[in-house]
Amino acid sequence: MKVRLAQKYGFCFGVKRAIAIAENNAHATTFGPLIHNSREIERLQRDFDVSLSESLEQAQSSNKVIVRTHGITKEDLQTLKTRGIKIIDATCPFVTKPQNIVEQMSKEGYQIIIFGDSNHPEVKGVASYGENVVIVGNVSEAMDYKFKKKVAVVSQTTKQPEQFGKLVGLLASKVNELRVFNTICNATFENQRAVFELSKEVDIMIIVGGKNSSNTKQLLKIAQDHCVDSYLVEDQDELEEQWFMGKTICGLAAGASTPDWIIQSVHKRIEQI
Amino acid sequence: MKVRLAQKYGFCFGVKRAIAIAENNAHATTFGPLIHNSREIERLQRDFDVSLSESLEQAQSSNKVIVRTHGITKEDLQTLKTRGIKIIDATCPFVTKPQNIVEQMSKEGYQIIIFGDSNHPEVKGVASYGENVVIVGNVSEAMDYKFKKKVAVVSQTTKQPEQFGKLVGLLASKVNELRVFNTICNATFENQRAVFELSKEVDIMIIVGGKNSSNTKQLLKIAQDHCVDSYLVEDQDELEEQWFMGKTICGLAAGASTPDWIIQSVHKRIEQI
Repeated sequence: MKVRLAQKYGFCFGVKRAIAIAENNAHATTFGPLIHNSREIERLQRDFDVSLSESLEQAQSSNKVIVRTHGITKEDLQTLKTRGIKIIDATCPFVTKPQNIVEQMSKEGYQIIIFGDSNHPEVKGVASYGENVVIVGNVSEAMDYKFKKKVAVVSQTTKQPEQFGKLVGLLASKVNELRVFNTICNATFENQRAVFELSKEVDIMIIVGGKNSSNTKQLLKIAQDHCVDSYLVEDQDELEEQWFMGKTICGLAAGASTPDWIIQSVHKRIEQI
Repeated sequence: MKVRLAQKYGFCFGVKRAIAIAENNAHATTFGPLIHNSREIERLQRDFDVSLSESLEQAQSSNKVIVRTHGITKEDLQTLKTRGIKIIDATCPFVTKPQNIVEQMSKEGYQIIIFGDSNHPEVKGVASYGENVVIVGNVSEAMDYKFKKKVAVVSQTTKQPEQFGKLVGLLASKVNELRVFNTICNATFENQRAVFELSKEVDIMIIVGGKNSSNTKQLLKIAQDHCVDSYLVEDQDELEEQWFMGKTICGLAAGASTPDWIIQSVHKRIEQI
């Protein structure tokens, strides 16, 4: 099987930075998964003794806590600080930005709207910096909602700009003053655009990434819009030969938290099919 | 012919206020038409000796100048002030608002976008309060435009909220920070909604208003979307009997600058057809 790689794929700036921080802080614990890729987390545990704490209680038992790329809530950060634990902040600067915006706009009396998935740790963290925050998952959710007169809106970093634009357009016709902060990450956007282009040119698309990764799931969705046979795999073992029957060219892309060593293994395996 | 009146029509707050100001300032001159209705301007001239100056030069020869509802440019206002002329400001407060916003946002370093018609006096006035202002007439004009990173957008008071929303949605996906001020006038919006509803229930729609009135032209456009036989008239003499052949019910609405006495004459004339 012939493989064509996306123009942009894999690790973004924030993920690279977080992994470097983890590698430089052996024996620390991360509060929540550092990035949304279980294979890479296993590697950090194995090679650098960086453990994973699934709860605040567990994290507090360590004396060195790395804050995950997606950030944590203001309250949890405060709790860790009051316990005198050494905190190493690996929050992606593109996530710190909406946290700061929400805090500032909330102080200035704006109602805060976050365009994002309310169950995602990034969104939970960002929301914790404001008062009476409304989280909107999609445009239709906002249709009948009564917003206040002064509204500020930010986006989860991994949302699609077109959808964000639609929400903002709706808000503009409903409120008096609207402050819009386009906090969608460029790297996310570039990976999305690359998948958009590639998926139109191939028979089958393979997206490599964590199944709990928001940006990876977005890539799958974009791929499926143009290439019916698009699949998300965490590693080469999840590839199924039957997917490739009758196909001649396979597109390959990967989420922002997918390490290169996994992408390479998947690439090799597809070529052998 | 049976006539059904729109739920809302005619004079808005700003027009009523301007006419009251003119009536209280006999012998003054207005710089540009006070409102976009030539019949009402003739009445003010006849009954109150309020004249119309078509140019700044002409206005300067008077010692009492009324600023029109649509406002004038910052430079023209300054010129009048330096000549020691008594200035009576009949600018609609809903127009003063975007003037102030544009001035403030421009000072704060935002690129200013005005959604409006670049030839309309309101837009010329509002634009004069900012530096490097971009005037966008419709969404498609903005598609390929390269905006700066920090953008503030206001609307001409008479634009349709849905179109404003579409422009804002596009901007949100193109810039980093966007400040949106929904400066569309509620009265305009209410007149629009009333025409929208009424035009779906009638055979023919008559919109009464000035042919140079932006809000009246918007009403005609909305009416035509649902009722093919929609016409704009300035007074009863412009009604053509042939329009009403085979029709049973006529909807009647009027722009925000149309005086009630004209609407009543048109109403009576249609009933006689």
